[in-house]
Amino acid sequence: MDWLAVDTTNCSVGRTLDAVGDRWTLLIVRELLNGVNRFADLQQHLKISAPVLTGRLRHLEQRDLVQRHTYQEAGARTRDEYHLTERGADLQTLVIALMEWGDRHVADSAGAAIVLHDKNTRHPVHLALVDPGLHTVKPSAIEWQPGPAHRTRPT
Amino acid sequence: MDWLAVDTTNCSVGRTLDAVGDRWTLLIVRELLNGVNRFADLQQHLKISAPVLTGRLRHLEQRDLVQRHTYQEAGARTRDEYHLTERGADLQTLVIALMEWGDRHVADSAGAAIVLHDKNTRHPVHLALVDPGLHTVKPSAIEWQPGPAHRTRPT
Repeated sequence: MDWLAVDTTNCSVGRTLDAVGDRWTLLIVRELLNGVNRFADLQQHLKISAPVLTGRLRHLEQRDLVQRHTYQEAGARTRDEYHLTERGADLQTLVIALMEWGDRHVADSAGAAIVLHDKNTRHPVHLALVDPGLHTVKPSAIEWQPGPAHRTRPT
Repeated sequence: MDWLAVDTTNCSVGRTLDAVGDRWTLLIVRELLNGVNRFADLQQHLKISAPVLTGRLRHLEQRDLVQRHTYQEAGARTRDEYHLTERGADLQTLVIALMEWGDRHVADSAGAAIVLHDKNTRHPVHLALVDPGLHTVKPSAIEWQPGPAHRTRPT
């Protein structure tokens, strides 16, 4: 495929970056994936300013990636909690891809700060490119091909 | 694991975002992965301004993600080409993770603009979480665990 001939205006890479391609947004998603759901906890753990956090959470809500829930503890005023929607939680693979690249190339010499396991088997898990027969495929064997919504640019 | 107790200052997610967590940077990597290596081609295909492209390429070079090569066509002045280094090319999985999320959630109704195949088997390939036995693991079964460089925050 001649990539220069591809009209990338509907490229899913670009669209995902438009939706979540922002450092703070993906760090917030990392926190939410790990059960940090309250504004004050997010703010404190991420060391993010309240206005920036408010803005990023609103952005995530507007894109249906996060839902806000109200809760109230005894004697306290109501507060908001933020939970990933199904499509928000589906960003886990992307966050893991960020983590795995970092583990390979910019981690401390001691190794990874976080590792992933399968809850059921206790085996370590990692991202891999697989075919439907579940044989792993070497990244070097990957070829990009036009799909159903492929567009060709006018030359 | 209590995520709020984790010191995320050496988290590989954050570090990767520091290195490449910028919309233009990852779009440039997408182009380079697909053999678009010349400044003018990158600029024209991405519709990016020359100063921004220059800045992002310099950023990628400084982080050893891209190497610059000089070439000269007959009768023309020398020009620069940009190629991913090994660690730059290893960003393919991350770019595919962006693409796959986009394909699932923000693609045209016609489907994906690009699909991935294994050059050898012609089978479609996709990213999956696998254990060393190559049984795929459901994302819902993933648990984040402390690794060798794990740090606990002072409370």
